[in-house]
Amino acid sequence: MRMYDLIMKKRNGGQLTKEELTFMVEEYTLGNIPDYQMSAMLMAIYFEGMSDEETAILTDCMAHSGDMVDLSAIEGIKVDKHSTGGVGDKTTLIITPIVAACGVKVAKMSGRGLGHTGGTVDKLESIKGFKTSIPEEEFFRIVNKVGVSVIGQTGNLTPADKKLYALRDVTATVESIPLIAASIMSKKLAAGSDCILLDVKTGSGAFMKTVEDSIALAKKMVAIGEHNNRRTVAMITDMDSPLGNYIGNALEVKEAVMTLRGEGPADLTEVCIELAANMLYLAKNGTLEECKQQAEEAIQSGKALNKLIELVEAQGGDISVIENPDNFEQATIAHEVVAKEDGFVNHINTEQVGIASMILGAGRETKESIIDYSAGIDMKKKYGDKVVKGDVLGILYTNKGESVKNAELVFEKAYTIAEEKPECKPHIYARIELDKIERY
Amino acid sequence: MRMYDLIMKKRNGGQLTKEELTFMVEEYTLGNIPDYQMSAMLMAIYFEGMSDEETAILTDCMAHSGDMVDLSAIEGIKVDKHSTGGVGDKTTLIITPIVAACGVKVAKMSGRGLGHTGGTVDKLESIKGFKTSIPEEEFFRIVNKVGVSVIGQTGNLTPADKKLYALRDVTATVESIPLIAASIMSKKLAAGSDCILLDVKTGSGAFMKTVEDSIALAKKMVAIGEHNNRRTVAMITDMDSPLGNYIGNALEVKEAVMTLRGEGPADLTEVCIELAANMLYLAKNGTLEECKQQAEEAIQSGKALNKLIELVEAQGGDISVIENPDNFEQATIAHEVVAKEDGFVNHINTEQVGIASMILGAGRETKESIIDYSAGIDMKKKYGDKVVKGDVLGILYTNKGESVKNAELVFEKAYTIAEEKPECKPHIYARIELDKIERY
Repeated sequence: MRMYDLIMKKRNGGQLTKEELTFMVEEYTLGNIPDYQMSAMLMAIYFEGMSDEETAILTDCMAHSGDMVDLSAIEGIKVDKHSTGGVGDKTTLIITPIVAACGVKVAKMSGRGLGHTGGTVDKLESIKGFKTSIPEEEFFRIVNKVGVSVIGQTGNLTPADKKLYALRDVTATVESIPLIAASIMSKKLAAGSDCILLDVKTGSGAFMKTVEDSIALAKKMVAIGEHNNRRTVAMITDMDSPLGNYIGNALEVKEAVMTLRGEGPADLTEVCIELAANMLYLAKNGTLEECKQQAEEAIQSGKALNKLIELVEAQGGDISVIENPDNFEQATIAHEVVAKEDGFVNHINTEQVGIASMILGAGRETKESIIDYSAGIDMKKKYGDKVVKGDVLGILYTNKGESVKNAELVFEKAYTIAEEKPECKPHIYARIELDKIERY
Repeated sequence: MRMYDLIMKKRNGGQLTKEELTFMVEEYTLGNIPDYQMSAMLMAIYFEGMSDEETAILTDCMAHSGDMVDLSAIEGIKVDKHSTGGVGDKTTLIITPIVAACGVKVAKMSGRGLGHTGGTVDKLESIKGFKTSIPEEEFFRIVNKVGVSVIGQTGNLTPADKKLYALRDVTATVESIPLIAASIMSKKLAAGSDCILLDVKTGSGAFMKTVEDSIALAKKMVAIGEHNNRRTVAMITDMDSPLGNYIGNALEVKEAVMTLRGEGPADLTEVCIELAANMLYLAKNGTLEECKQQAEEAIQSGKALNKLIELVEAQGGDISVIENPDNFEQATIAHEVVAKEDGFVNHINTEQVGIASMILGAGRETKESIIDYSAGIDMKKKYGDKVVKGDVLGILYTNKGESVKNAELVFEKAYTIAEEKPECKPHIYARIELDKIERY
């Protein structure tokens, strides 16, 4: 078999077979196929696409390029969850305790933030003492005992994906639905859970800017999961505005606690109940309606919040900040950004809000950047809100005085104020199961 | 400027500017742009194409990546000629003496053969003593004195093309009209002539298998030439059958001499008159009709044959084989291949005939192969000919007895014999000037 012939086949619109995809991924990972052939293949895939079956096989090959986590030491059905990333997305901190409180296991590996998006591992590390790097046996023990554990990525997971992603990143071949889907899902397959809930973000703060692109990606990922015997559901949720009001690591933990107390903002609460319900549904805890009731009850009863406290305790974190988020260390600077005109918030460029938060110290500009856990933004005005000149749009928190001016400029620019009140927008756009799309 | 952004622009269907193309070609030639980015770009060009202007600029950049031959030491208008290659294509040996005999200068650099196609340099080297590698001043002196000189490629011409072609060859990006056109024309621009006649071969023995693809390539090349101030015409000529009856180096020189004596086969003579006339037309020797008469007269008067003798003499070759081609050394084996059935020659797979000739020793399987100048094929039956069982289809000439069986098998298989006489096919399909296509 020659890589040349595979490139030619894909270039001419053909479908690659299991043998061909296996050869390609194995030999590329070993370094026997040069980058210049793989980048030509990636560009051919960008133009010609891949069938669901091809993508599912490619994903499986990528998953098997490294360690496959074996979760059989954990009893019961394990449900994983993945978000395509956004600004203010603290849902993992809220829904994994809810799901665990309802008796379903979550053994989750999470990532760190980069650029305008945050990462769950960073948020958890804003809790003093919280260990995100723990031995596998300890990870399994916590999931068995508490029902949930969240750690950073461990071992040699999907080296093929790492190598392919690095190449796509420099050859303008990132924006390909099958390649994005394979990249995400290869990590999920390798992570070993039985079921996968996908939260595909859509809008100005998300990687996918339109609902239709998000649905296309979601369909591809659901097909990959199901083809590889993982029950998979995807939700398309809004990221045209930041999710909730707080952006920044400790600030987001605080908002997660508020939400688990039943005092969270409406958008965040709605999305979290829906996501949690779907995770329970995947684990066969009942109908979707029943699962939703279970999720709501877990909040009302305080069981979900207790689960978060148990999780933090099990991973060595300081539970006093969960019991009372005012115990988090505060940023030395709290700078109010005020509105310069009257009107309604017509649009928020969410990526720019994420960048403002990064400038304040809450995110990473490069992989080497150091995060200030207390930095971030408290958004006082969201999409559709009425604004009077002089109103506070948001409060910028930081310990770097020199960053304020720059962050303020970016944050202010992110707002579009208009005379008319804009139309309401949903927080959830669609739900995708295999061969089934429900639009909300 | 970043290569990444250029790939993205082309991928999204954009047009690259002069600055961008210059950056790309210069930095790639210097090794500052990695192959994996260039191959992604080439695949994007394969899918998105390039406008005539983009291709013309790319070609100029490629030409300027190495030496630009300065022909100003040669008086008058210099006309170049390029064939896209085929089997039995000895037209350069015939038309350049015709053109020189009519007073137009030809300072031609030719290539060697590879695979199923032959090369003019190899054919000339079958003449004992003929030097194809001579100093530039000597080359100019011969053109000024004789009117024509044909040498091998010299100096550091179009290194960007060499590097790009090697990359296209392993990344399935050869078959792109703008890239093929740029590759050919960059060498022609660098070679320094004022006018360029392109002979685009079409059919089973050619790189372009269909007339429409050949026209598309021809249009692109004419646009490139004219955009870079070279008068350019392209002819689409048949390569669905080998051109003339002889294939092989000394055999083709012999057939060239016969044609210059007015005793050549009809297809070859017709194509050569037409090509020579167009070279004269490009040099403004008259209307196309007048130029055709000049070309015919050069043959009838014997002036063209004398010009070939002068050329051979000037480059140190043994003129006795031109004066009497029977003086060429003969192959020790002459093996007749006979027809096994009655009918008409319905099709000749010309690429396979070229391969049979290569097997006999007339061509190169790899760049390192050594050519046997006396080896080749004398085709006794051509397209449309009546065949009776036992008739000789062709005579295989070689000094390698062990090659005969294999060559015979390939040669025989190249023929399709059918009951019905097939329709006549033209030897010339079209003529392309800037913004003008004449179909024949």
